[in-house]
Amino acid sequence: MDNLLTKIVALTKRRGFISPGSEIYGGLANSWDFGPLGVELKNNIKNLWWERFIHKRDDVVGLDSTIIMNSKVWEASGHVKGFIDILAECKDCHNRFRMIDELQNKNKCPQCKGQLIEPRQFNIMFKTNLGPVDGDIVYLRPETAQGMFVDFKNIIDTTCQTLPFGIAQVGKAFRNEITPGNFIFRLREFEMMEIEYFVREKDWKKYFEYWRKEILDWIKEIGIDVKKIHEAEIPEGERAHYSKRTIDFEYEFPFGQKELYGLAYRTDFDLKKHEEVSGKNLKYKDSETGEEFWPHVIEPTWGVERSVLAVLCESYHEDKERVVLRLKPRLAPFKAAVFPLLANKPKLVELARKIYENLRQEIFVAWDDRGNIGKRYYSQDEIGTPWTVTIDFESLKNDDVTVRWRDSMAQIRVDIEKLPETLKKLLNNEIEFNKAGRLIKVSLK
Amino acid sequence: MDNLLTKIVALTKRRGFISPGSEIYGGLANSWDFGPLGVELKNNIKNLWWERFIHKRDDVVGLDSTIIMNSKVWEASGHVKGFIDILAECKDCHNRFRMIDELQNKNKCPQCKGQLIEPRQFNIMFKTNLGPVDGDIVYLRPETAQGMFVDFKNIIDTTCQTLPFGIAQVGKAFRNEITPGNFIFRLREFEMMEIEYFVREKDWKKYFEYWRKEILDWIKEIGIDVKKIHEAEIPEGERAHYSKRTIDFEYEFPFGQKELYGLAYRTDFDLKKHEEVSGKNLKYKDSETGEEFWPHVIEPTWGVERSVLAVLCESYHEDKERVVLRLKPRLAPFKAAVFPLLANKPKLVELARKIYENLRQEIFVAWDDRGNIGKRYYSQDEIGTPWTVTIDFESLKNDDVTVRWRDSMAQIRVDIEKLPETLKKLLNNEIEFNKAGRLIKVSLK
Repeated sequence: MDNLLTKIVALTKRRGFISPGSEIYGGLANSWDFGPLGVELKNNIKNLWWERFIHKRDDVVGLDSTIIMNSKVWEASGHVKGFIDILAECKDCHNRFRMIDELQNKNKCPQCKGQLIEPRQFNIMFKTNLGPVDGDIVYLRPETAQGMFVDFKNIIDTTCQTLPFGIAQVGKAFRNEITPGNFIFRLREFEMMEIEYFVREKDWKKYFEYWRKEILDWIKEIGIDVKKIHEAEIPEGERAHYSKRTIDFEYEFPFGQKELYGLAYRTDFDLKKHEEVSGKNLKYKDSETGEEFWPHVIEPTWGVERSVLAVLCESYHEDKERVVLRLKPRLAPFKAAVFPLLANKPKLVELARKIYENLRQEIFVAWDDRGNIGKRYYSQDEIGTPWTVTIDFESLKNDDVTVRWRDSMAQIRVDIEKLPETLKKLLNNEIEFNKAGRLIKVSLK
Repeated sequence: MDNLLTKIVALTKRRGFISPGSEIYGGLANSWDFGPLGVELKNNIKNLWWERFIHKRDDVVGLDSTIIMNSKVWEASGHVKGFIDILAECKDCHNRFRMIDELQNKNKCPQCKGQLIEPRQFNIMFKTNLGPVDGDIVYLRPETAQGMFVDFKNIIDTTCQTLPFGIAQVGKAFRNEITPGNFIFRLREFEMMEIEYFVREKDWKKYFEYWRKEILDWIKEIGIDVKKIHEAEIPEGERAHYSKRTIDFEYEFPFGQKELYGLAYRTDFDLKKHEEVSGKNLKYKDSETGEEFWPHVIEPTWGVERSVLAVLCESYHEDKERVVLRLKPRLAPFKAAVFPLLANKPKLVELARKIYENLRQEIFVAWDDRGNIGKRYYSQDEIGTPWTVTIDFESLKNDDVTVRWRDSMAQIRVDIEKLPETLKKLLNNEIEFNKAGRLIKVSLK
């Protein structure tokens, strides 16, 4: 199965999705850059998320708070004291490991079986200094959530939201992990999509269930087989200090079943703590009863890079002849590619170019006129482009083109005039076409 | 004029666009958070930029490289040595200032006229340590550009791009400024939109001119009056170490004429340096002539928060009765708002709610049923919502609604069935409506 990861690393490097960060300098501790196609795939996931959870809903508003916050935020949240990890180091080979129970029991280096140095605690927040010369210590946020708590009152005051409602944020977070790894799975610099959903205490179970279902629906929407998702109830003692209940949504990654998304019941811990430390009233006031209280919080969290990785694992397929990324069209970097059948026939190229320029104003499309048409198809299949448009000699006579669907390789003829509209309907999942080459309406589930 | 800034700070705080970062803890050194409406405005600017410069063009590809890179990147780029500022401190009041020529000549504290301590140099890159306990020093990137140079070869190898072509990135950068300020104008943590455009040396003047024009066209597209833009040619000695020509595009901000965007000719400085330090071949090979060389670079740079600020300044208008943000519809947070004429008439509310829910699946819309209709109009005008849709008693009989245009306050009746399509056409600038309440096609310029 690890074979699949090797193939994905190679494909994404070769086709400009993902490559090692600072590669010309030998990389940097498992950091990865998203190239021309990778940034599109990642943006498509983030945009779909924003559209689904903020734009299409009534009860969740967006936020973009800073990465560097006042350090009192992290004192109040418990991160300065409690966001620690335990480092084990081998006396002999000097390799470093994250101290986990198993390692503690054996007390031997897993690499060379050498003796371990007395384990050391350290905080996994990145520290830096704000201001010139002898500036104050500040931290790079290890989670986006605290922005939502710190700005809670501002948002209450400037929107018409009443309980239950959520605040959502997409942004970078940083964790000084001892052993980052597994491609883009565990990174020191990563992106999160997070919602803090504020509810009345009595309703927490109801909304925990509600967001559990929302996470599963999202997983389906991005094309992941829910049979490969396993919900792991995190027992007390292993949960974060603020959580009274946590479920990890684990996906069958090629390197094992690991956390993809998380859902936590944070209680009223954070708002209460911030009120205590800041002295500012962070209570919610019920406009009908006049009652004031700290709302309780349900927190669904999505890792952006983990979403990308799971989507890549799930969509990678090998046929006899080709590799195809069966990405949901909405997530595919290019929505279509345009080919002139032959690159040395000026009339074909001219018409194809016109169609391409025209389409490009509406959807993100690729152009390819290299080699033979079969190779071009496979080249687009490999990067997940849903539809390819070929301009041939018939096109010059009949003003129509061939449109091919990536997954079934079925083809239809479409009038040039109707091409942008047809592609948009295909993309919006209003129509699809069958093996017989006919456009059909998509049946509603 | 500074009055305008005060008004914008107040409006954006009151309506949930922008508020001080970590505010409950007394803020943090001029950091600002983007609230529910601010994040929408900012995203709309970033998305418009990406669509315009990456999706609609052939010759620019996207990238998302990490904020923390191998420190050799910053040694090669000259930032470790050269990205310094000079700090002056008053012996008496201990206020700190950025040492500029004027201050140097006077050698007096501008606040208390006290004596200045011997000025100190310091690097304005933020430093942190990677890895647990005694990790290596790394920097938070002070510009996004180096990602494009470090990944140059990867991008050449994975795309079909030939010269001239560009690599574009949107992302955070960090500068440990001595005196951040003027609201969101000078921040320590900020976002940039940047293109490195690679050309043959002989063509640099041509493409410098080309991108000069592109920047001006962008400025018009986001609704800024180009009469308030002043191009400042930066003389030698004041330019960055890598630049042979730089133009600042200055905008008449309320606090003075200051840099909004920049355009620099970086020569082949960066690629050459990275090749020298990394030992990796970063030359471009001409596929026809076989010639190998370092391309030269034209770099247009857009500040995201400065774009937001200029757009806010430009669109802020006061009438006798109302404040209106004349945002380009494409940039407005909400595209429309839906009102039932009276909140206590269930039939009106029910129909309005249906229209609202339906619209919300297509565009980002607000709902308001508080107070009287006039107040609701003004409330939407103040946040720049282009169109408001009112459902009244006529609507129940005739299946139509009133649509009002923010700027002229003109109103038309639109069939409910045609509402989503009409709003989308208005938004895409295909139609508009005149004072007489008629829909007309927009004349092409």
